[in-house]
Amino acid sequence: MIIFGERINGMFTDIGEALRNKDPKPLQYWAVKQQEGGAHYLDVNSGPAIPSEERVEAYEWMVNVIQEVSELPLVLDSTNYNAIEAGLKVCKRPAIINSCPAEQVKIERVFPMAIQYNAGIIGLTMDKKGIPKDAENRVAFAMELVAAADEYGVPMEDLYIDPLILPVNVAQEHAPEVLESLRQVKMLANPAPRTVLGLSNVSQKSPDRNLINRTYLAMAIACGLDAAIMDANDDDLVDVAATAQILLNRSVYADSYLKVFRAR
Amino acid sequence: MIIFGERINGMFTDIGEALRNKDPKPLQYWAVKQQEGGAHYLDVNSGPAIPSEERVEAYEWMVNVIQEVSELPLVLDSTNYNAIEAGLKVCKRPAIINSCPAEQVKIERVFPMAIQYNAGIIGLTMDKKGIPKDAENRVAFAMELVAAADEYGVPMEDLYIDPLILPVNVAQEHAPEVLESLRQVKMLANPAPRTVLGLSNVSQKSPDRNLINRTYLAMAIACGLDAAIMDANDDDLVDVAATAQILLNRSVYADSYLKVFRAR
Repeated sequence: MIIFGERINGMFTDIGEALRNKDPKPLQYWAVKQQEGGAHYLDVNSGPAIPSEERVEAYEWMVNVIQEVSELPLVLDSTNYNAIEAGLKVCKRPAIINSCPAEQVKIERVFPMAIQYNAGIIGLTMDKKGIPKDAENRVAFAMELVAAADEYGVPMEDLYIDPLILPVNVAQEHAPEVLESLRQVKMLANPAPRTVLGLSNVSQKSPDRNLINRTYLAMAIACGLDAAIMDANDDDLVDVAATAQILLNRSVYADSYLKVFRAR
Repeated sequence: MIIFGERINGMFTDIGEALRNKDPKPLQYWAVKQQEGGAHYLDVNSGPAIPSEERVEAYEWMVNVIQEVSELPLVLDSTNYNAIEAGLKVCKRPAIINSCPAEQVKIERVFPMAIQYNAGIIGLTMDKKGIPKDAENRVAFAMELVAAADEYGVPMEDLYIDPLILPVNVAQEHAPEVLESLRQVKMLANPAPRTVLGLSNVSQKSPDRNLINRTYLAMAIACGLDAAIMDANDDDLVDVAATAQILLNRSVYADSYLKVFRAR
């Protein structure tokens, strides 16, 4: 189970302010803190804090200041591919591009860039028309992304299919479809692509967010989830990720398995 | 998700003592308390507290004293089928027989009894030689139990297949096989039999039992678990059962869904 720490995102007030003021400290604080919590990668997203025309410069700056304090690899998260490319140019370790929908014009921009910078790709099971309601159509989009990976020579372990979970309080019918999509995506090819979710989305605006997040995480891991963009400082949530590894017999059981997981 | 409360079991000191002293109060206390916690059925097991030759009388007594304070249906849990039958005779509501392995001689004793008393059956995926290591052989035993249900006319919704989870600290390789068994059992017939686990077994002698129980419960529900014999007074565990229902879109989401689940 691979944890992508979600916290360096301009949607959070402290990070948004830091980006506007070019203050590296909050980014560096969360880089270190998320690694301590259990993150294996750091997601980096300016969000709306930076106007589109300044994002290229902003991503280069973000990557540089984070790399001053952390050796974790990065997940560059933006809809602006020029900003992602600026970040990739200064990444010291292979990064992941977040994200590419199943649209030909975006595939043509993202997949060659992934090859050039030895980066992974998060592929979204959607196109211009949006997110399908059922597993069948999500998996059809996943197949297009798998075919693109084949065509461009992106190894399957570098392709992370994201079947896009929506908030359960407004789109409840999507939650089981996403579980079924995970199951089917893991059977699409041999080797199969990896899978990922933006986990916190499932609990948007629900009262007990942490309970919903950790229950859905365990369910999704049982269905084939390999990675999640999530709160790496929610100890109960990280404990569930570690425990699910044990219960799928992917890490050897020891009474101290929670510590072992965090020490990786 | 159906919760079978596990607490009325002679393995617990207070219940063992109550059985030896014919003191109804601890049984009645746990009958009420487990219902408050979220139990839909009460498992009733004398355990080793009562010598085999006294169990027939003991089960009649247990059922009667529990029914004085609770309207919940019962799961009669014993290897002594005469004791179970004595209990069934005094049950006011359809009960469940716990349990029947995939052995012809036991099937011939249990299935006709289930028909006679309109009871459900927990069928174990094992025979005299023990519990198979892999999903394939567990499912083969499940098929024998499904065939027996067909033969004797036990409706599929009254057959609960238990693929038998073992403690993860000593039999870790079984945990993913049980998940795979659940998935396959739910595809065995149409309608499919129900599924059940003795959940607490997974965490025997591990340090953080509750964490392992609730993580495995969420994973198992995602794979097709319908019911669990479990600690109905572990609030975090019952919350996970309620949340998994919501995330599988089996109960309609409301911000108050935890309360709604308990009020059923």
